Amino acid sequence: MTPDLLARLREQVKSNPQTVTEVIDQIKAPDAAELINELSLEDAAMTLMMFPIEEAVAIFNEPSCERRHEIMEILESDRAAEVLKKISSDERSHVIRRLTPEGRAKLVPTLPENLQAEMRMLLQFPPTTAGGIMSTEYMHLSPDSSVSEAINHVRANSRQRLHIYSCYVLDDESRLLGAISLRDLVIASPGKAVQDVMRKYPISVHCLDDQEKVARILAKYNLLAVPVVDDSKKVLGFVTIDDALDVIIEEHTEDVHKLGGMQALEEPYLASSVFDMVKKRVGWLIVLFLGEMLTANALGYFEEELDKALVLALFVPLIVSSGGNSGSQATSLIIRAIALNEAKPSDWWRVMSREIASGLVLGGVLGGLGFLRIAIVSMFSTTYGEYWFFIAITLFFTLVGVVLLGTLAGSMLPFLLKRIGFDPAAASAPFVATLVDVAGLILYFTLASLILKGRLL
Amino acid sequence: MTPDLLARLREQVKSNPQTVTEVIDQIKAPDAAELINELSLEDAAMTLMMFPIEEAVAIFNEPSCERRHEIMEILESDRAAEVLKKISSDERSHVIRRLTPEGRAKLVPTLPENLQAEMRMLLQFPPTTAGGIMSTEYMHLSPDSSVSEAINHVRANSRQRLHIYSCYVLDDESRLLGAISLRDLVIASPGKAVQDVMRKYPISVHCLDDQEKVARILAKYNLLAVPVVDDSKKVLGFVTIDDALDVIIEEHTEDVHKLGGMQALEEPYLASSVFDMVKKRVGWLIVLFLGEMLTANALGYFEEELDKALVLALFVPLIVSSGGNSGSQATSLIIRAIALNEAKPSDWWRVMSREIASGLVLGGVLGGLGFLRIAIVSMFSTTYGEYWFFIAITLFFTLVGVVLLGTLAGSMLPFLLKRIGFDPAAASAPFVATLVDVAGLILYFTLASLILKGRLL
Repeated sequence: MTPDLLARLREQVKSNPQTVTEVIDQIKAPDAAELINELSLEDAAMTLMMFPIEEAVAIFNEPSCERRHEIMEILESDRAAEVLKKISSDERSHVIRRLTPEGRAKLVPTLPENLQAEMRMLLQFPPTTAGGIMSTEYMHLSPDSSVSEAINHVRANSRQRLHIYSCYVLDDESRLLGAISLRDLVIASPGKAVQDVMRKYPISVHCLDDQEKVARILAKYNLLAVPVVDDSKKVLGFVTIDDALDVIIEEHTEDVHKLGGMQALEEPYLASSVFDMVKKRVGWLIVLFLGEMLTANALGYFEEELDKALVLALFVPLIVSSGGNSGSQATSLIIRAIALNEAKPSDWWRVMSREIASGLVLGGVLGGLGFLRIAIVSMFSTTYGEYWFFIAITLFFTLVGVVLLGTLAGSMLPFLLKRIGFDPAAASAPFVATLVDVAGLILYFTLASLILKGRLL
Repeated sequence: MTPDLLARLREQVKSNPQTVTEVIDQIKAPDAAELINELSLEDAAMTLMMFPIEEAVAIFNEPSCERRHEIMEILESDRAAEVLKKISSDERSHVIRRLTPEGRAKLVPTLPENLQAEMRMLLQFPPTTAGGIMSTEYMHLSPDSSVSEAINHVRANSRQRLHIYSCYVLDDESRLLGAISLRDLVIASPGKAVQDVMRKYPISVHCLDDQEKVARILAKYNLLAVPVVDDSKKVLGFVTIDDALDVIIEEHTEDVHKLGGMQALEEPYLASSVFDMVKKRVGWLIVLFLGEMLTANALGYFEEELDKALVLALFVPLIVSSGGNSGSQATSLIIRAIALNEAKPSDWWRVMSREIASGLVLGGVLGGLGFLRIAIVSMFSTTYGEYWFFIAITLFFTLVGVVLLGTLAGSMLPFLLKRIGFDPAAASAPFVATLVDVAGLILYFTLASLILKGRLL
């Protein structure tokens, strides 16, 4: 759909929702879902009443239709029941999970008994497992049928609008024997048995596997879908690559939020309440604040030195921020390398030696700049006093040290977290910075005591 | 493949590569690619010589086989030529782009003339555009053939091991008329014309569209593949959802690196040279360092106040880090919301009002903790002197102020960057922190002057 058409339709929906059917034919469901997102709940429900039922079903099938569970509750009950019956099983369980208890009590009994039983089965899986996100409408074939019988079966049982990702070949107890794509069926000789043309040992996932693991398997093996089995290898459903794409995007959002030093939001930013958002942010902020309080202790410990050489105080923010910045770079590099399996826990010493080299070079560059600043200012003024050279030397070595500390803490912390069973992404930039700050200040004043003793101190 | 088998195979490849063929039958190509990644170049080439040709081709078809272009150059030339001829067109152009000039000169002329012409066409597209990542082996049908003729055409032209994502219906000048899935062909009546059963107005992308845009379109419209067309709507090839998945994962890596305050690495972490890595990191570190130098100027400006009330210096790192941490949270929230299109540039004032509310609450919490610390310490000691209450009040209001500054800078900077045409992800945590630090110090000493005047100052 062209942006022009979208703009025109948006105008029309806003100004005169009654006439919207005129343009419906040209709309694709994801675009319609975006429009629905912009309307009030009441207008959204009204608009969905005006769409032909197939269009309404297609829109409710879109995960991007943000408030579909809320809309479902205020739709006229006949239409709600019909939509709920016709959407795909994974989206149905997604919506039902989010209904209010009243909504559930009202809507679930309108489903045919077989779908109700299926829902009971799906809802028992945690929502972020393979079982929680799978669809159940797979095409199953028996091993002894011929290829032409199989094609006829597909023809008779294929539902409108649904892709057929793969057909699964099951034994009498619904256990997975093999998989066969429609293409393989079409090019096979019609008289052969399905079991002779299917692919054996297909990859499958367990119903309680985490959705992230499922997504990684789909991506790694270039699969369009993967069957989901239970303990006895019985096929329960399948997860498709477009579900995996949604999972990967969701997990990435979580990672970015954690990297920013907070708990991940579950809802889109503007859809979360301010209260909820503060709740996700305040915990880490407090932890970091309490950790950072140690800097006040460290500075208090060196108060005598500060009193004698107040000039040292001027560079405190510069020093702590340099450690934090180099740590932030290192942790974002390593978190991503771990997530992509480019760096394994056993690689920690390779990473460490690389980060020592990088830290020394980067620290040398920043230290040099710090030295230059003091030297240049001292050519034209007496700001830094007669011992400016020794102050500059102190700053140089401190910067080399804190940048090195930053790269080491930033690169090793994700490995450590992973080793003790936490998410490496919790090694956020602020967390690393806080760790480095106290150490950086201690280094600074220790070096200053050594270099400036008998001069300023 | 089970981890056991993988471990066994890894052992075997390492200890006795000659016997590896015994276990080859059970390996899937992505697992084999992982193994190959762990070998030296020479061993990798030797192992690939021992695999049956279909297996070798399957491994070279894996983007996860990291050094396939380097391996290609040292393979025996007959095998290299055969692999290059048989891999899919998108992987072939990927590999050829990365060959040395000598490798190219040696290998490209071994391709059949039609593939050489195709390569010339593909290589003219920038590598991150639709044209640069597309495959050319699509199934094309003419609008007037019957469904049964179309199925026969598919049967005759379907290449081993390749999915058929969709068949495209083209006119005499190769312009896109419609798309039809194999499922639609199978369930349609055999006598109908293709143009009567195809889906009209299929979504397509332009060959120069950025790969990120192509990935978003595939994800949004739940497509398994999207056709790539040129200016005259002629179909050149198609991009599949598994390519899109690779693109999205790559873009995520870029975002995380930028968020960490550096340029994105192009190669995997351990595959990049230390020199290259330092180059990507040093630029931003210098910019941030120069910006942060302003804190030394600010503190220099308030040196007199510091001299009178040295106790103020103790809280400098605590204050600047609190602004940085709240800014880091806000920027990671907003960058992700912008990337997911959850927050549009026109939403900036809604975001701002939410961030003002959050900033005040979060600042109040941290300010309260800061106040408590001074109060509690002052019950038991004289560390903060007789005016501890006023110092605590100064710290409270400063923390409210810097946390608010942090949330505002962190949330508005991504919008600003997007507006002026930059990547919002450049609003890294360190960048936001640097912006807030100077302002935070000025606020601190200004409040201190007001509150402590006639007391400490």
